[in-house]
Amino acid sequence: MRDLKELRERQRRFVAERDWDRFHSPKNLAMALTVEASELVEIFQWLSEEESVRPDAERRRRAAEELADVLWFLVRIADRLDIDLLEAAEAKFARNAEKYPAERVRGQALKYDEY
Amino acid sequence: MRDLKELRERQRRFVAERDWDRFHSPKNLAMALTVEASELVEIFQWLSEEESVRPDAERRRRAAEELADVLWFLVRIADRLDIDLLEAAEAKFARNAEKYPAERVRGQALKYDEY
Amino acid sequence: MRDLKELRERQRRFVAERDWDRFHSPKNLAMALTVEASELVEIFQWLSEEESVRPDAERRRRAAEELADVLWFLVRIADRLDIDLLEAAEAKFARNAEKYPAERVRGQALKYDEY
Amino acid sequence: MRDLKELRERQRRFVAERDWDRFHSPKNLAMALTVEASELVEIFQWLSEEESVRPDAERRRRAAEELADVLWFLVRIADRLDIDLLEAAEAKFARNAEKYPAERVRGQALKYDEY
Repeated sequence: MRDLKELRERQRRFVAERDWDRFHSPKNLAMALTVEASELVEIFQWLSEEESVRPDAERRRRAAEELADVLWFLVRIADRLDIDLLEAAEAKFARNAEKYPAERVRGQALKYDEY
Repeated sequence: MRDLKELRERQRRFVAERDWDRFHSPKNLAMALTVEASELVEIFQWLSEEESVRPDAERRRRAAEELADVLWFLVRIADRLDIDLLEAAEAKFARNAEKYPAERVRGQALKYDEY
Repeated sequence: MRDLKELRERQRRFVAERDWDRFHSPKNLAMALTVEASELVEIFQWLSEEESVRPDAERRRRAAEELADVLWFLVRIADRLDIDLLEAAEAKFARNAEKYPAERVRGQALKYDEY
Repeated sequence: MRDLKELRERQRRFVAERDWDRFHSPKNLAMALTVEASELVEIFQWLSEEESVRPDAERRRRAAEELADVLWFLVRIADRLDIDLLEAAEAKFARNAEKYPAERVRGQALKYDEY
């Protein structure tokens, strides 16, 4: 897999071959995305933060699968809404640099409106 | 933004400048990911599926922001766990092709163990 | 089960007998709550809204289990934070009546700041 | 607020006065539930577990609001699916006692199929 574009193209074929477009409204895809995100949370929920940094091989393997599942639905929703994920990420960097100036937020994790 | 690799590199610098690594355990990042996924869900929750396919400009703009937020934490967790997202996506295609043979699942949306 | 108070008391004993208090920080319990909420979402994600109103017996049985799981962690977090759920619900009615006056919002489902 | 039954009855009137039943498919309500659960997660996501046990007054107040929001949608879904929450909780105690015998799981937090 070279890049997000190849992922999107192969995904389109995969979905078309199964006639799954009818189920893929952004509403449904957003639900599926949150389900996959929660399956990732489930892996770490009873671990301490320290333990989560160095999960055992089995947990790490499952995390890789869940990350792939999240990416799958993320790319699919973006495709259905005709949104370019890398452009959206670029815009986010600009917003974040403004909301969280390094000298002001260093070492603290608050929401931008709590500083 | 060219690709996921550039996103990861710029993100590393952004986080290091703010000394945020201390907050970025996979456990915390998974929580943040699910929060962003839910903010996407919130945009569509009271819309019909049909309405979600063609959201108005304001909802589409907000969706792009939330997709960027999900991608942000997805790339960050993958980096902390040293997981290659595109490799994980490749492995997922192989699993999915096996679990969901086109001729068997066409036009139905069940979990693989419900067919 | 008579009421939420009995649920809380029996739950305290269940947890104490298993020495699970150590895992039950509000942070961890909030993660567990969101995981259970997503398992409920999973039941309905590929159904139409109409289908979700009248799920088959198996889906309805699974929904009852997931609702019980959500209630379980809800009662547990409230207990750990010493919050009275019914008092909190009473306060919510007051807030909602103010934010969503019937004559203004009838038949529309927007967030209070979108009217 | 005396009990869950009173909450359900007052909620029915609140919803009927606003003509909101049309939006309240179990599918939509499950989405709303997960959104509220994530707003609870957001309060705790960057706190350590220890910090989450003793949140400051403002965070505790917000947690009470989010718990009320989760309870609101939980009661609403149960009503739409004609499920008795306390009966479901009773059944869950029976299942959990079987899946997690005290002498076997004491002091460990694994899923029942990991012991």
